[in-house]
Amino acid sequence: MLESIKKIAVLTSGGDASGMNATIRAVTRYARYKSLEVIGFYEGFKGLIKDNFTILTEENVGGIIDRGGTILYSARSQEFKTEEGMAKAIDNLKKHQIDGLIVIGGDGSLRGVHDLHARGVRAVGIPATIDNDIAGTDYSIGFDTALNVIISLLSKIRDTAFSHDRLFVIEVMGKNSGLIAINAGLACAADYILIPEIEVDLVKIANSIRNHRKGKRHTLIIVAEGAAKASDVAASIKLLVGHEVRVSVLGHIQRGGFPSALDRLLAAQFGKKSVDLLLKGESDCMTAIQGKKIVSVPIEFIINNRKDISKELFQLAHILS
Amino acid sequence: MLESIKKIAVLTSGGDASGMNATIRAVTRYARYKSLEVIGFYEGFKGLIKDNFTILTEENVGGIIDRGGTILYSARSQEFKTEEGMAKAIDNLKKHQIDGLIVIGGDGSLRGVHDLHARGVRAVGIPATIDNDIAGTDYSIGFDTALNVIISLLSKIRDTAFSHDRLFVIEVMGKNSGLIAINAGLACAADYILIPEIEVDLVKIANSIRNHRKGKRHTLIIVAEGAAKASDVAASIKLLVGHEVRVSVLGHIQRGGFPSALDRLLAAQFGKKSVDLLLKGESDCMTAIQGKKIVSVPIEFIINNRKDISKELFQLAHILS
Amino acid sequence: MLESIKKIAVLTSGGDASGMNATIRAVTRYARYKSLEVIGFYEGFKGLIKDNFTILTEENVGGIIDRGGTILYSARSQEFKTEEGMAKAIDNLKKHQIDGLIVIGGDGSLRGVHDLHARGVRAVGIPATIDNDIAGTDYSIGFDTALNVIISLLSKIRDTAFSHDRLFVIEVMGKNSGLIAINAGLACAADYILIPEIEVDLVKIANSIRNHRKGKRHTLIIVAEGAAKASDVAASIKLLVGHEVRVSVLGHIQRGGFPSALDRLLAAQFGKKSVDLLLKGESDCMTAIQGKKIVSVPIEFIINNRKDISKELFQLAHILS
Amino acid sequence: MLESIKKIAVLTSGGDASGMNATIRAVTRYARYKSLEVIGFYEGFKGLIKDNFTILTEENVGGIIDRGGTILYSARSQEFKTEEGMAKAIDNLKKHQIDGLIVIGGDGSLRGVHDLHARGVRAVGIPATIDNDIAGTDYSIGFDTALNVIISLLSKIRDTAFSHDRLFVIEVMGKNSGLIAINAGLACAADYILIPEIEVDLVKIANSIRNHRKGKRHTLIIVAEGAAKASDVAASIKLLVGHEVRVSVLGHIQRGGFPSALDRLLAAQFGKKSVDLLLKGESDCMTAIQGKKIVSVPIEFIINNRKDISKELFQLAHILS
Repeated sequence: MLESIKKIAVLTSGGDASGMNATIRAVTRYARYKSLEVIGFYEGFKGLIKDNFTILTEENVGGIIDRGGTILYSARSQEFKTEEGMAKAIDNLKKHQIDGLIVIGGDGSLRGVHDLHARGVRAVGIPATIDNDIAGTDYSIGFDTALNVIISLLSKIRDTAFSHDRLFVIEVMGKNSGLIAINAGLACAADYILIPEIEVDLVKIANSIRNHRKGKRHTLIIVAEGAAKASDVAASIKLLVGHEVRVSVLGHIQRGGFPSALDRLLAAQFGKKSVDLLLKGESDCMTAIQGKKIVSVPIEFIINNRKDISKELFQLAHILS
Repeated sequence: MLESIKKIAVLTSGGDASGMNATIRAVTRYARYKSLEVIGFYEGFKGLIKDNFTILTEENVGGIIDRGGTILYSARSQEFKTEEGMAKAIDNLKKHQIDGLIVIGGDGSLRGVHDLHARGVRAVGIPATIDNDIAGTDYSIGFDTALNVIISLLSKIRDTAFSHDRLFVIEVMGKNSGLIAINAGLACAADYILIPEIEVDLVKIANSIRNHRKGKRHTLIIVAEGAAKASDVAASIKLLVGHEVRVSVLGHIQRGGFPSALDRLLAAQFGKKSVDLLLKGESDCMTAIQGKKIVSVPIEFIINNRKDISKELFQLAHILS
Repeated sequence: MLESIKKIAVLTSGGDASGMNATIRAVTRYARYKSLEVIGFYEGFKGLIKDNFTILTEENVGGIIDRGGTILYSARSQEFKTEEGMAKAIDNLKKHQIDGLIVIGGDGSLRGVHDLHARGVRAVGIPATIDNDIAGTDYSIGFDTALNVIISLLSKIRDTAFSHDRLFVIEVMGKNSGLIAINAGLACAADYILIPEIEVDLVKIANSIRNHRKGKRHTLIIVAEGAAKASDVAASIKLLVGHEVRVSVLGHIQRGGFPSALDRLLAAQFGKKSVDLLLKGESDCMTAIQGKKIVSVPIEFIINNRKDISKELFQLAHILS
Repeated sequence: MLESIKKIAVLTSGGDASGMNATIRAVTRYARYKSLEVIGFYEGFKGLIKDNFTILTEENVGGIIDRGGTILYSARSQEFKTEEGMAKAIDNLKKHQIDGLIVIGGDGSLRGVHDLHARGVRAVGIPATIDNDIAGTDYSIGFDTALNVIISLLSKIRDTAFSHDRLFVIEVMGKNSGLIAINAGLACAADYILIPEIEVDLVKIANSIRNHRKGKRHTLIIVAEGAAKASDVAASIKLLVGHEVRVSVLGHIQRGGFPSALDRLLAAQFGKKSVDLLLKGESDCMTAIQGKKIVSVPIEFIINNRKDISKELFQLAHILS
């Protein structure tokens, strides 16, 4: 079976994450080193269905390691969730004689790996999402860059908050997970962190802010978008504390930009591992980092497990603030 | 009269701007070099009324050149607009035997200089506002840093827009002036720029976007906050173009952060000039840069003139996009 | 024994590393939360001998999380290596009734922990060195920031190398260890990496460069300072390849600056752990991260073990280049 | 004559400067807007002689505004200085029916414009050199970016200098001109600045350092490469002051990277102006900014005049330090 691998495909799917390009580069270069042909489908599963692709070579993945976003583009595909769409995708993989598919993306994209595998496609996933909410891996690509972007932005906000004696509510990404909020909050010395996993007690926070404000010129409250809307939090705090509150929704800025060192190192190792997995005949699994080890995790594990937040980090952030 | 200058005061007022600290440092060090005593009032005119101050020395302005915001804090003061408040301010200046006051701030702060002068206080202003909407000077402190922050953020947004084939509406500062929007838009290759000075024709923009989108994977529309709300623009464009539109409101992030080289060079020169003006017995004027020259402009000129946007730059931005 | 802990001291020693301030903040705030008194000795063991110290409070460690370097300063102390110096240090600890000492620093500093423990002082270490060459911990504080600084600098060098069709030899830190060189080299797509652990074959590299240069406009060679001098490598490559070679010695720039998210997260967790260790009566050990776990490692282990480089990463860097 | 302009060529020459790509983009897009054809010669005059070129369109200059270096590459050409080389260059311009040439580069490149004009070629220059040593224009492209890079690096060096109580000698670019050294030195609060234009008195500096060091934990000395070698300065200061001195040679890092807002605004305006000049039949001139005005300056003026440093800024830097 192993000798059958001659040609692989790669695609990026779901929300873009910084380091996806570095991953495409690593997959391509390592696969070429292993004498494989590589094609890249554009716009994730949408391009796979539409047969929108490009040939990837050592040369045309040069110079992309520094760039945010993804040169293969990304998109969400409703059609891929239908049997018809899935069939078209598989037809295209067959047409191109693809022996293995590497999917770079988040939660939903990895389910796509599972679905394709169930229909006979050899596929492996690489976790890439700034939310870092995928079970089985300490890090997904893009998380570390997003944290670094957020702390640099919060440093700017602290400058202005400090100058004007202001309360700020800053909304960060995380629809279902407080991971970004907790890590960013701890890293940037936020005063309060609101996450979906822990019920918010605004009255308690408001009381604490009132008692805390003596001698303090800035109060930063970080809200994961899944916990509450920053503007709602700000309105409540204003009423409860009687002090003006400013809002900053970081939004898409968190996604992009120059990838961090850690995300590049992960990209290199995940890229290599994903090709090695295909070469060994593996499928229906995801590359992961556990401790310092690069391992393989069954997609089933990811589907059936939820990545928990660290309550210790959450508490520590509040102790140190 | 000139020999009477022994002690000066400095304050920062209005919205904080990056480079204010570098200006405080320059004022203090140059004044000390000229053997003057220097005190800094906290929180602008509010602190002047409340007599909230600190002594500034060569040493305690060390290490602040790199920092955004203002170590003297800033605030808005309603009381300063009353005769009673003004009287308290003047009393405090007399009590401390202040021979000259340097006000670092924007439009409203400079009017304060004028009002104090009218009541016998020797006062000069230094233009510092990220809006750069003060007549008589090519640059005010904080504008160049804000532009640099904006282009670095827009570069991140372009990464994600490009990856997802998206339209973005980005709201930047500028309540009455499109200066930030035009300059940032030209510098970061925005596709459309909406400013308060020029009536917005969304239908025309929508038509242009439709025709333009072939082969283009990102469309960036920059809106000055004074022209329209980004969310309203996005809603209209979505209806007119039939393509999803994302919104990013940059907000307070634009204010803060590590000051740019240009803002530091201005800070040094404006700081020196403002002290020299006081030493020469000048008052009711503002330091300014015109071309490469550091000059003095009467506050009256600033009050009576409006800084125009450059229509040429506005057009050029659209030609190059 | 445990109830005896009422007052602790902290110091930073050896080469400064970004994140030391965040660590001082975490130690202080967490210790205060545990109702301990905290003093900080200036300039590492030198200040401990000279009794040069400051009281650390929640307030005076505010605002330092963003700053590189160390507010407690660092220095090398020859005197500390003598019995006389050691005796003075211990006297000062006794005089201040210090129940436990936290030493933030690298290899040599951690040996100081061991030596003090041998003389009856309860002491724990926190690994902080950009070299990351301390056994028993995946990361030491400062390493991740240094990597991020290096990749941003190398991105600039690649711009100019690419424009001018140039070979560059870039010297990075690492006297005894190629860890920075390998990780930075992999993260920034260097073409060749020279490290102290693996014998350098310049002829082979030169041959490879000659064959490789067709269609390539930049060649980046990273040299750990312990492997060779960049200028020597450049001179040899120039002779062997017959193409001009430029040199860049990154030097001290690698140390400083805004700490990365990862270094701040480590700082928070190591800070807490070190205080908890002292409270539990532990001594002669170092906080460490292994996988995602914060653990304690005996100093003896650190002294007797050498942290190996990852040959896999080294090879992968060359495969992907 | 004016209607004859149908096709223009553009090239980048000399040391690369950040903003060259933004300039290529502006020239191309504005020329296309004016219905001109545009080709770009690779590697400056070398490519012009070798007929190494590419067609430039609106599309293929997309996405380059953010990138340092030059997509047209740059090189030095000895051949261009010969009559034979010059003849080949002119032949190639004729072969392609080029009606006007735009040269983006520094001093030497602008002389090339003059030489080509003397042989009947219609040519205009755009000043682009990080040295900013071209007479007749306040700014050349790349200078502002270089200053911003330098101040961010010096901020890192100050962190480590401050932590270790160190003297640093930092070498910046500037073979014949102290412009970078003065502006960077003033912007980053350097203590001493050594430039080629003013004789260096190391003994005086050493005395001042000795007196100054009380209560000061870092001393930064900036040296323009044309004034002295940093290592020589460091050796002398060490002997004279009796305190260890560290050296940092910033080198090529100063050239590259994400262009600043100001350099992009200049690029847009210089690009437009250069095309307009060709369309008006002008030649043998350079675009320039004087004050806020974009003007044209005869190349002869540039050749015959030297851009002076500002002694006022030089003194101010020392007063404020």
